[in-house]
Amino acid sequence: MNGAHALLDLYANLGVEVCFANPGTTELPLVEALGSVPGIHPFLGLAEGVIAGAADGYGRMAGLPAISILHLGPGLANSISNLHNARRARTPVINIVGDHASWHVQADPPLSSDVLGLAHAASDWVGSIQSPRSVLALGMEAFGEAISGNTATLVFPTDIQVADAVAAPMGLTAVPDRPVVRVTDSVLAALGRPKSALFLGGRALHGENLRLADAIATKTDSRLISETFAARSERGAGVPPTERLPYFPEQAMACLEDLDTLVLVGAPSPVAFFGYEGMASSLVPDWVAVHTLSTERDPGLALRALAVQVGVNAEARERDASVGPGPLPDGGLNVVSLGAALAATQEPDTILVDEAATSGLPYFLSSEGSPAFDHLMLTGGSLGFGLPAAVGAAIACPERPVVAFVADGSAMYTIQALWTMRRYLLNVTVVVASNELYRVLRIEGDRAGIEVDGVIDSMTDISGLSWTDLAKGMGVAGAKVATGPDFAEAMAHASSIEGPYLIEVPL
Amino acid sequence: MNGAHALLDLYANLGVEVCFANPGTTELPLVEALGSVPGIHPFLGLAEGVIAGAADGYGRMAGLPAISILHLGPGLANSISNLHNARRARTPVINIVGDHASWHVQADPPLSSDVLGLAHAASDWVGSIQSPRSVLALGMEAFGEAISGNTATLVFPTDIQVADAVAAPMGLTAVPDRPVVRVTDSVLAALGRPKSALFLGGRALHGENLRLADAIATKTDSRLISETFAARSERGAGVPPTERLPYFPEQAMACLEDLDTLVLVGAPSPVAFFGYEGMASSLVPDWVAVHTLSTERDPGLALRALAVQVGVNAEARERDASVGPGPLPDGGLNVVSLGAALAATQEPDTILVDEAATSGLPYFLSSEGSPAFDHLMLTGGSLGFGLPAAVGAAIACPERPVVAFVADGSAMYTIQALWTMRRYLLNVTVVVASNELYRVLRIEGDRAGIEVDGVIDSMTDISGLSWTDLAKGMGVAGAKVATGPDFAEAMAHASSIEGPYLIEVPL
Repeated sequence: MNGAHALLDLYANLGVEVCFANPGTTELPLVEALGSVPGIHPFLGLAEGVIAGAADGYGRMAGLPAISILHLGPGLANSISNLHNARRARTPVINIVGDHASWHVQADPPLSSDVLGLAHAASDWVGSIQSPRSVLALGMEAFGEAISGNTATLVFPTDIQVADAVAAPMGLTAVPDRPVVRVTDSVLAALGRPKSALFLGGRALHGENLRLADAIATKTDSRLISETFAARSERGAGVPPTERLPYFPEQAMACLEDLDTLVLVGAPSPVAFFGYEGMASSLVPDWVAVHTLSTERDPGLALRALAVQVGVNAEARERDASVGPGPLPDGGLNVVSLGAALAATQEPDTILVDEAATSGLPYFLSSEGSPAFDHLMLTGGSLGFGLPAAVGAAIACPERPVVAFVADGSAMYTIQALWTMRRYLLNVTVVVASNELYRVLRIEGDRAGIEVDGVIDSMTDISGLSWTDLAKGMGVAGAKVATGPDFAEAMAHASSIEGPYLIEVPL
Repeated sequence: MNGAHALLDLYANLGVEVCFANPGTTELPLVEALGSVPGIHPFLGLAEGVIAGAADGYGRMAGLPAISILHLGPGLANSISNLHNARRARTPVINIVGDHASWHVQADPPLSSDVLGLAHAASDWVGSIQSPRSVLALGMEAFGEAISGNTATLVFPTDIQVADAVAAPMGLTAVPDRPVVRVTDSVLAALGRPKSALFLGGRALHGENLRLADAIATKTDSRLISETFAARSERGAGVPPTERLPYFPEQAMACLEDLDTLVLVGAPSPVAFFGYEGMASSLVPDWVAVHTLSTERDPGLALRALAVQVGVNAEARERDASVGPGPLPDGGLNVVSLGAALAATQEPDTILVDEAATSGLPYFLSSEGSPAFDHLMLTGGSLGFGLPAAVGAAIACPERPVVAFVADGSAMYTIQALWTMRRYLLNVTVVVASNELYRVLRIEGDRAGIEVDGVIDSMTDISGLSWTDLAKGMGVAGAKVATGPDFAEAMAHASSIEGPYLIEVPL
């Protein structure tokens, strides 16, 4: 068994089931090894932004890492913008980057670059495999980092991939680093104060954790506030609702100004997305005391401990699941009615991957009554997340409907993802909000007092794209719709067919 | 005048004419400043791979840097794979990366990442602008690095972009670092030996430099060999021919085995692209003595000095310009006849950007007799170079025809470049060699003794793309052709219209 085979065998043994890859010559032994490790299913992407975004979407839904195979420094580099989002989401990620044969690097061949420098700049943890003996140890360490919510990158020279290595013993398991959970007196006291809120992020926003937080908040008469861009937020009818912290600092601070206490649960203390002159970085008013329940990737243990102290459990509070979304808009679609139309037509149990940027807020507001769904958002602000993450979510949950709700500007960064959707007949409906603008830049320019003159105008004008043609070019059928009923019909058609479908909505 | 304006003003003053940009919020003051610096023309790309590749193509043809405006760490990261090619080509490049307001970085906002770490891993030189006082000094330094053939990256926080700064004095000039040229006795003696060759790379492969090298080689009875992947190689009828060093090590070493002396002119000593077990990194046989005439970006001074010593000048040797390309193939197109068809139909003075990968060699062999042209190749092996570089070349030389000869696999990495071609009606004919494979991986797998079984097969199969539809999606007209005459007709049509045109050739 060679090093490549041993590493993949280890990961199969640890429960890894999926590999996203855009391999090159220096990763061929890894690709070959995939043929001998039937438990790991490979998926090809035609650009590395697709690989990293798919790994993010997969990891958010599966809770386990996929492995990503990337080609040398350039392949790693192309993945970094979506790795950034994954890091901010604390998604479990394992990258395996092939490198030149270790004896060849000194020759500085044309494709050689500072792989380790890039890896360190883009990862929480980096392992450089320098001998066959370290394959398993570094492989295990990478896995442990990943399931603790870190991005782990292994650099694996091709000569060591093909060198003889020892197979991993069967029946391995790994557990994330578990902190000692201490529900401090200060947190308990804080929740006893009149104007307290739990601030939820990461894994606190779905499943049992969300319900525990909801029960604790009810019992302690606290508000439940969620971070602005959540990795995975369970939402819709019957799901405990949270108040979403607004994006712009004025509104965010207004949201928090009535508080005297904020308890962080799986989220960092909120800060402004950008620095605005005359405003502080922190969104938390000075008079609000901030306490931390847990900053771990999974605040579940801490929430359970707190629930015991407070005397509630996850079933403590029933929520009405009978509310529905608003009606389908019957006229032409604009940014507001598109949100309502999507909320009115999405299927139960949808995974909604949201990179609709400035076109996203109306949908958020409309979808409170939609059938329960998972809402995956752009955690790191790095564009090109939506389409690839939908690929990953669909592979993690093949039985669930996936909607990629994307803006035209952001979708263009990783448009290649459509090909992967088609290749593997993934169950993804792509809804493109096409306003033909980098609209957020016009808004931000306006805020900064920059005149939207000729240059700003032309540099934010992205008109001239035909999304149904782009989709067709990658084998994906689609329709361009302008009204609510046509949109609903297209959504129904998308559900009825196998594989992906694209709906272009000019705004 | 604010810092952003001062920096762009400095560059306009130094002769910079073009800016490629995919800006975000933290670069808005730079975009605004473009409106006040009419000498610099901005071009928008919808993904940063387009920006970096366009800057590479532009710099290779213009000899001067464009500036690239990139958004924070993710924007820089997306540009790194094409920056890698530019570095290997020693193209002058200046990146300006916006950063968060300097006081905001400590808050670790969602879009914050290790910008400087990425910049250092991806650039030859990095300047971190920390106060308005350093804008001009660091700006000048970046320019000096760029025109010396380096990739310079400036990180420019948004608060310093808007801070008051001093304008640059008029009439600035900068010169690249010029080494003392010493034509050493050993180089002269080496060329006197019976089996010598000049090994040309970088700027030695076009213009006066190439003709000087040709004259020197003729006079000293030396061979003229060019590096495998040239930044800009002037070729075709009437141009001094060079022998191209083959890609695979066995063939490359066979090419060099009859030599006893190799003189490097603007190129590093050749090494294998990948490390193959049992073969050395160096492609130069042990018995060949290697001498260096110049490793500078522009070996012109060194070549002129050597020419004086040898007693020749650039006009020393007339070359026959009357040869033509071979005939247009009249049947169906395969990888060989496509090369012949392109060579037979390209217009005089074409800039041929070549990222045709395994489909490229037949064209290279066929194009020796084509009307004189510039051949821009993939210097760093990082895929996604071709379409963006064609954008840059067309902007540098609007009066010349540009052909982007790309393979389907490589073109997909930066397919967004088609949109930029259309937006600015660039005179680019895109020829897509569509074999629906990552064919090079099958060849390399074969060489490495890896069985092309199910997994390798499926992970190198990129079928399912329709290039004319992809082009249409970005507003670019095109045709799918299968025969020589149809190809010729499509090439003629492409020349007759304004703006880009795409020709898809299934292989």
